[in-house]
Amino acid sequence: MSEKSTSQPEAPMVDVQNQEDTRNIKIDKVGVKDIRYPITVMDKNREAQRTVASVNMYVDLPHHYKGTHMSRFIEVLSEHRNSISPQRIPVILSDMKKKLNAATAHLELSFPYFIEKTAPVSGAVSLMEYNCTLFGQQGDDGIDQTVGVSVPITTLCPCSKEISRSGAHNQRGVVKVVVRYNKFFWMEDLIHLVEKSCSCEVFSLLKRSDEKFVTEAAYDNPMFVEDVVREVAVKLLADDTFTWFSIAAENFESIHNHSAYAYIEHARQ
Amino acid sequence: MSEKSTSQPEAPMVDVQNQEDTRNIKIDKVGVKDIRYPITVMDKNREAQRTVASVNMYVDLPHHYKGTHMSRFIEVLSEHRNSISPQRIPVILSDMKKKLNAATAHLELSFPYFIEKTAPVSGAVSLMEYNCTLFGQQGDDGIDQTVGVSVPITTLCPCSKEISRSGAHNQRGVVKVVVRYNKFFWMEDLIHLVEKSCSCEVFSLLKRSDEKFVTEAAYDNPMFVEDVVREVAVKLLADDTFTWFSIAAENFESIHNHSAYAYIEHARQ
Amino acid sequence: MSEKSTSQPEAPMVDVQNQEDTRNIKIDKVGVKDIRYPITVMDKNREAQRTVASVNMYVDLPHHYKGTHMSRFIEVLSEHRNSISPQRIPVILSDMKKKLNAATAHLELSFPYFIEKTAPVSGAVSLMEYNCTLFGQQGDDGIDQTVGVSVPITTLCPCSKEISRSGAHNQRGVVKVVVRYNKFFWMEDLIHLVEKSCSCEVFSLLKRSDEKFVTEAAYDNPMFVEDVVREVAVKLLADDTFTWFSIAAENFESIHNHSAYAYIEHARQ
Amino acid sequence: MSEKSTSQPEAPMVDVQNQEDTRNIKIDKVGVKDIRYPITVMDKNREAQRTVASVNMYVDLPHHYKGTHMSRFIEVLSEHRNSISPQRIPVILSDMKKKLNAATAHLELSFPYFIEKTAPVSGAVSLMEYNCTLFGQQGDDGIDQTVGVSVPITTLCPCSKEISRSGAHNQRGVVKVVVRYNKFFWMEDLIHLVEKSCSCEVFSLLKRSDEKFVTEAAYDNPMFVEDVVREVAVKLLADDTFTWFSIAAENFESIHNHSAYAYIEHARQ
Repeated sequence: MSEKSTSQPEAPMVDVQNQEDTRNIKIDKVGVKDIRYPITVMDKNREAQRTVASVNMYVDLPHHYKGTHMSRFIEVLSEHRNSISPQRIPVILSDMKKKLNAATAHLELSFPYFIEKTAPVSGAVSLMEYNCTLFGQQGDDGIDQTVGVSVPITTLCPCSKEISRSGAHNQRGVVKVVVRYNKFFWMEDLIHLVEKSCSCEVFSLLKRSDEKFVTEAAYDNPMFVEDVVREVAVKLLADDTFTWFSIAAENFESIHNHSAYAYIEHARQ
Repeated sequence: MSEKSTSQPEAPMVDVQNQEDTRNIKIDKVGVKDIRYPITVMDKNREAQRTVASVNMYVDLPHHYKGTHMSRFIEVLSEHRNSISPQRIPVILSDMKKKLNAATAHLELSFPYFIEKTAPVSGAVSLMEYNCTLFGQQGDDGIDQTVGVSVPITTLCPCSKEISRSGAHNQRGVVKVVVRYNKFFWMEDLIHLVEKSCSCEVFSLLKRSDEKFVTEAAYDNPMFVEDVVREVAVKLLADDTFTWFSIAAENFESIHNHSAYAYIEHARQ
Repeated sequence: MSEKSTSQPEAPMVDVQNQEDTRNIKIDKVGVKDIRYPITVMDKNREAQRTVASVNMYVDLPHHYKGTHMSRFIEVLSEHRNSISPQRIPVILSDMKKKLNAATAHLELSFPYFIEKTAPVSGAVSLMEYNCTLFGQQGDDGIDQTVGVSVPITTLCPCSKEISRSGAHNQRGVVKVVVRYNKFFWMEDLIHLVEKSCSCEVFSLLKRSDEKFVTEAAYDNPMFVEDVVREVAVKLLADDTFTWFSIAAENFESIHNHSAYAYIEHARQ
Repeated sequence: MSEKSTSQPEAPMVDVQNQEDTRNIKIDKVGVKDIRYPITVMDKNREAQRTVASVNMYVDLPHHYKGTHMSRFIEVLSEHRNSISPQRIPVILSDMKKKLNAATAHLELSFPYFIEKTAPVSGAVSLMEYNCTLFGQQGDDGIDQTVGVSVPITTLCPCSKEISRSGAHNQRGVVKVVVRYNKFFWMEDLIHLVEKSCSCEVFSLLKRSDEKFVTEAAYDNPMFVEDVVREVAVKLLADDTFTWFSIAAENFESIHNHSAYAYIEHARQ
């Protein structure tokens, strides 16, 4: 241990991470995971919205380097946190590549996003939470980006309605849509598209007249989890903004202690 | 660092935990938390059931001791893991007090517990999961024990049924009941008591004839979360086994992205 | 079902919740649980900080009422969300009591809170996340309020240091402190008090010179989880702002797959 | 609603799921998600081990069918739950395809698995938990299967050791390895391979002599998260059982409130 640096600050410190590695194994991703950071996201209605993200940031590591420099990821995140949007992801990825001296960079952000909703009859206003994700990866062969939204919904079972004397089991569900795209779109519009593809949309605040409305709307519009993913697929296929998508719908069944699930993935030819 | 023990195994090692602490502050609980361990639980129908528990084990620490001996908790747990039941908790607590040389001992077990259920019309058989908890604390002034069960249920909203042209929103809920008691009872019976106090009970496996049955049963028996906790309370008050109870009912509302909640706590005079 | 309201909006709708309940059982808490909402919290250094809270809101329900009016909780939350602080909790509780026509009101807020920290040697600046909680309950006999902070820390094991030839196992831990108080204090100062009571504080961003500093600081200051809760207790006892406190310290042990835990609760006489 | 079946049980019930769908959209996966079920897993040392699994089961749904029959998944699961192993996955998948009349079947099982470990010096025996996953997918083009193990480890930072006067930060980490394979292997051996690729393995029960041993072993064997994934990769590459693998290592950094992460994925040519 005699070669260790002493506690005198002026002694030069060995950069262990920069040392050579001889195992000849490239690492696909190395970086920081599960850091929570306050961010500001571009918002359709209010210019910008402040929220809190869970963030993963990785780069590749060539086989001859022993380690990466973890602190630099946080520096990049700190620098960009006040203007997060799909449009800014390429800039952040470029900064990561430059600062970490890497060939590829990966960035994953997940955050609650709030939209003001108006109850269908009373007009009462409240905020609904949607979990959103931004993902980007940049290598030598260009950039790959996705945007994801998780949308809570109501579904009412067509089979239960059909076979039962009265009523029908219904439940909260969640639809997670992830898209690749070739031009700008608002997350708000993607969320809205999903909310138009279920038995009824969900609200934070409903007065009695609204509760009557959503109960009847769901009963008049029974949908399996299979119907939900197909309805969303039909709408996404009709909009050539979206070049690829995955749709996962999950029902927290009211009659079971597990979920019903359906999933579609599609790449436009 | 010269006073450190060397790497020679025969050198006596200082017992730091046994050293004196001079801050004069007693610690209420010290021990191990969130350890997962396989256990065998007494079962009403099959003698014994093997499952996996999350376990917390604590003792008190008098002000003059610096630390406790964490490994001894695991030794006690290993020794008793094959016969876990409310009746065995006092024995385990006594062992903890003895082994840790402590005045008070705390034990918390939480585990999934499975009961075979028969679908109401088809008779199809499947297993339902209930999360159960055993808690015990033993000090100089005797022992305090609770048993808890979490029971998934269906609730159908009376208001929604009343005001809507047809249908009614319904959802999965969960009722967590914790009891103190003065004589033996089966967790199975406590779970059954809760399942008789909601719009309809929940099953893992339902054929179409069963789905018709549970849909109509729920529609014929609308209950708020407030009704559920009151129904459970009425039944627990009628059984003098239970000297204290808390009842928490939570509805994963199908029309909202949050829960409706009700809670009652009661000590028999 | 002939007495049901029709779909004509002008038909008066029965208020089921206001109907009488004859089971003669009072409900301690009824309301909304696990709603996420954007809030603005008073901040020592920047006036205000926007974050996202998980919120529970309850009132009591007298035995003769069938149900509460869930939508009114969201109305109160929406109204107050832009000025959340311990000082505002009593105002929100009063509004809840008034709007829900209740004798007691309960409010629980839990949110990530970010503080700018400066690395000890390099001076590099980054944000650290602390989870904070505000709790309030107001009944006929006055108000009860607590403030809680969860602070990530480093602990280095005194026993491991003492008995080992070199090195000592260390790990991330978290200290959750909840306090009752008789005068104003900043959450930032409570967090700082905890960070001065462990082997070393934790940072989001550390350069190599900082890593040397925190490694050596932790090695020079070994502390059991028992030491951490006692150190925090000593500091809280010395400040008569705090009339009651609980301190829970948990170490995510680097040599085990479970946690070491210690807990102290104290009420000033 | 006149075409609805009445409540007389003998009335034939419409099979809504079997009705035709005209949207012309195939669903990739439909089924049940997040069901917990007790299972018995083949065990290297004790013949069989009972544990509790989280299970997802899906099939594809051709474009002309409206829905799948969810109850049949639970029937298949119930039938096979007492003999789960990688070797049995193909049989379960075949049953799913047959019972659901599907072209492809997917099965995902995740469960805690316990192995008896002996402390390095004292020989004290305890059980360690490892989370394991079995995944299988069978379509027209054959079967694809993976086995995954999550292994808790200790890592000690080489940079921190190098630059610090004494000590080095260390922490718990977890390595998740997923493999494809061309012949039988024991999960126990894969777990053991990972435990030999870190600064030191982790135990549930360590006496003081063991604590000295693991502290010194970790200090003598500093490894970055990058080193861990490379060491595991070197060992997996040397065993031609494994035709594909992914290795994700995550350190719950003791000096940060986030994780360090590294990932390698490799397909044998």
